[in-house]
Amino acid sequence: MIVVPERIIAGLMTRADAFAAIEAVFAAMARGEARNFPVVREAIGHADALYGFKSGFDRAHLDLGLKSGGYWPGNAAKGLTNHQSTVVLFDADTGRCRALVGGNLLTALRTAAAAAVSVAHLARKDSRVLGIVGAGHQAAFQLRAVAEQRPFERVVAWNRSPEKLKGLACAAEEMGLPFESVSLDRLGAEADVIVTITSSFDAILGDAQVRPGTHLACMGTDTRDKKEVDPTLVARASVFTDEVAQAVTIGECQHAVALGLKGEADIVPLGAVINGDHPGRASEEEVTLFDGTGVGLQDLAVASRVVDLAVQKGLATQVEF
Amino acid sequence: MIVVPERIIAGLMTRADAFAAIEAVFAAMARGEARNFPVVREAIGHADALYGFKSGFDRAHLDLGLKSGGYWPGNAAKGLTNHQSTVVLFDADTGRCRALVGGNLLTALRTAAAAAVSVAHLARKDSRVLGIVGAGHQAAFQLRAVAEQRPFERVVAWNRSPEKLKGLACAAEEMGLPFESVSLDRLGAEADVIVTITSSFDAILGDAQVRPGTHLACMGTDTRDKKEVDPTLVARASVFTDEVAQAVTIGECQHAVALGLKGEADIVPLGAVINGDHPGRASEEEVTLFDGTGVGLQDLAVASRVVDLAVQKGLATQVEF
Repeated sequence: MIVVPERIIAGLMTRADAFAAIEAVFAAMARGEARNFPVVREAIGHADALYGFKSGFDRAHLDLGLKSGGYWPGNAAKGLTNHQSTVVLFDADTGRCRALVGGNLLTALRTAAAAAVSVAHLARKDSRVLGIVGAGHQAAFQLRAVAEQRPFERVVAWNRSPEKLKGLACAAEEMGLPFESVSLDRLGAEADVIVTITSSFDAILGDAQVRPGTHLACMGTDTRDKKEVDPTLVARASVFTDEVAQAVTIGECQHAVALGLKGEADIVPLGAVINGDHPGRASEEEVTLFDGTGVGLQDLAVASRVVDLAVQKGLATQVEF
Repeated sequence: MIVVPERIIAGLMTRADAFAAIEAVFAAMARGEARNFPVVREAIGHADALYGFKSGFDRAHLDLGLKSGGYWPGNAAKGLTNHQSTVVLFDADTGRCRALVGGNLLTALRTAAAAAVSVAHLARKDSRVLGIVGAGHQAAFQLRAVAEQRPFERVVAWNRSPEKLKGLACAAEEMGLPFESVSLDRLGAEADVIVTITSSFDAILGDAQVRPGTHLACMGTDTRDKKEVDPTLVARASVFTDEVAQAVTIGECQHAVALGLKGEADIVPLGAVINGDHPGRASEEEVTLFDGTGVGLQDLAVASRVVDLAVQKGLATQVEF
């Protein structure tokens, strides 16, 4: 059995690896070759923790397993990450445990890669201005992954507390991109691509603030009642997602669907665009929106890739099991 | 992170350890301090495998985690066990992965221990004859664990193919108990305690075959439509179980409940007897029946115990993670 500890993953996994893994698994999902299993999510009644698992099987790549973990709000005070994740992979031919992989950095990379894949397949080729809404831990990952997909010339960003945008400014600088903290009106008026990555329960971005031709990647909504943009903006956009069933229940689409503004049949798996079964963006004027809800197969895909890399580079810990 | 490989578990875990762990977790469940999470179970569409996990949290013992695995029918031809299980334990205070434990032998031990705990708390003290229905891999584990709970003088057993009872006969001999292959009529007429451990979808044991005062541990039914005994026998018995919700949906009780012969409120968690909140057996004439459906908390309880034992004996593999 192979163990890939959290510590070595940053030195193994590139954004390009994560992009390729996520693009391939979205494609397999749309072909019906990969399937997520029901999500388990429980408030455990101890340490205020939310705990659960996402799991699935990708028959195309023989990735079987689960990501287990959750949110422990008291961890930061102990010098640990509040979000704790572990990926367990199984041999699809025998059911034996194949690998145990640290899941914290991988979760950030796979979430960023999903937005990046959406930008690669849906944003206008001439996108020049990247807008980021939110300034949490995940925002810089999003910026770095998305910035590589188009010839962006600058970044505009908004956060409820603008002073928290410093980390994002550093990430932009690292990517060689000028960075500016702006109002939501300016962000919507200037950005060609907008990534929302917040934990909001109220719409931050309104329909009128977003101009024609924009691509949005809404990455923050993964729970009932969370909301980042106005449902009328979702209704106006051509909507793509990782998994339709999840988008309409816990994703950004949940509100537009509940209001009858969007039907489940109107929402397209991003994998169908990757596979060439859907044309994707129809015009330079169309607003496209990717509802990134986050699925277990993404976790398995990046974990499987990092196991391969660790083995190739002789960095995997082999443990008798 | 601690790894306890499958190979060393037989030398670490005793039946007494498994009994104590299962008795404690059933008690915690009945006190409301331990809870199983929803079960995931999926036909993966590859290698004819059934895959899934059982998970939960025992607040009394801070056992958090899951048993993942399933059934790979092609394994035997490869020299591997068809049932493959792995237990993953997490630190309830931080969510970090605490231990990875081989789950194959533990699954057999915890299932046997559940029947043994039911016999210890429900069978007549003067039980002399042990009856076993079934001759699969798990039957010998049941025999050994249950035999220790009462002053049994002999074992009678039945299997559809009597020639397969040889393994069970050896297990009885090992426990110093005379063994006889008998008809179902004789088994019911002579046994004071009956353990059923089959994969049957039709009732094997009828109501009229079981005499007053018998304790039955029905351990084989863990799926919709499986059935080991006649629903009228379930209706006649005082029924106890590991988890009521599971007993009425996938356990032996499912049929009596569906037929209206038994109500959910009539089924008592075995933990209530262990805790002294229910008197258990009411008379020497009563038929008691334990519906052992198998819950994730049992797996966590025995895995946690084996981790403690491995650490105490210096046999745990410590892995950076």
